[in-house]
Amino acid sequence: MFKEPLKKIVDNVEGGIAGLVMGFDGISVESYTREGHKIDINTVGMEFSFILTQIKKAAEILDVGGLTEIAIKAEKLTIVIRALNSDYFLALALAPEGNFGKGRYLMRVVAPKLQAEL
Amino acid sequence: MFKEPLKKIVDNVEGGIAGLVMGFDGISVESYTREGHKIDINTVGMEFSFILTQIKKAAEILDVGGLTEIAIKAEKLTIVIRALNSDYFLALALAPEGNFGKGRYLMRVVAPKLQAEL
Repeated sequence: MFKEPLKKIVDNVEGGIAGLVMGFDGISVESYTREGHKIDINTVGMEFSFILTQIKKAAEILDVGGLTEIAIKAEKLTIVIRALNSDYFLALALAPEGNFGKGRYLMRVVAPKLQAEL
Repeated sequence: MFKEPLKKIVDNVEGGIAGLVMGFDGISVESYTREGHKIDINTVGMEFSFILTQIKKAAEILDVGGLTEIAIKAEKLTIVIRALNSDYFLALALAPEGNFGKGRYLMRVVAPKLQAEL
């Protein structure tokens, strides 16, 4: 149900490594990792789910409206996160030299399909 | 010392609202807010400094290298954050329809000047 959309995002982005649909509580719904990569996207998601919850709270305190997208770039990995609704998010892991703009675009395109299922 | 570079970034980006140099401990070094905006960029920075520290820790746990850039998009505000070194970060607040790509570009260009002073 979620595997195909995740695969569509990850496989169609230059540098795409893995994709994930997860609850803000850190419980994974579905994940997909491109062949040849050994990243544990569920562990990455779990590490960030708690942080995302805090970012949501900060956004509420600051009254800047609902969270739509977060991108975190580290030297060895880029993570793009898109809120699907108040309970679930979509995450994409990219190589640092990956196509960040295309990744964001595909996530935006695929999100309504995922939202309809959640 | 930091005011001019901050002004240069904020004033040259479509939708630029405010800029900030802050320690990861939440203590502001310098900030600049474009005329006509009433955002308290120091409060925004303080709310996020704690979260940034946690993202840094998560990046260490996940062994993905040092943090370079974070972007947070909410419905009413976009915040782009760039680590200057292990102690300080640069933040830019943009209107949601602002030029995100240009903001990131200017932050990257101005960062070495700020780093040299820290």
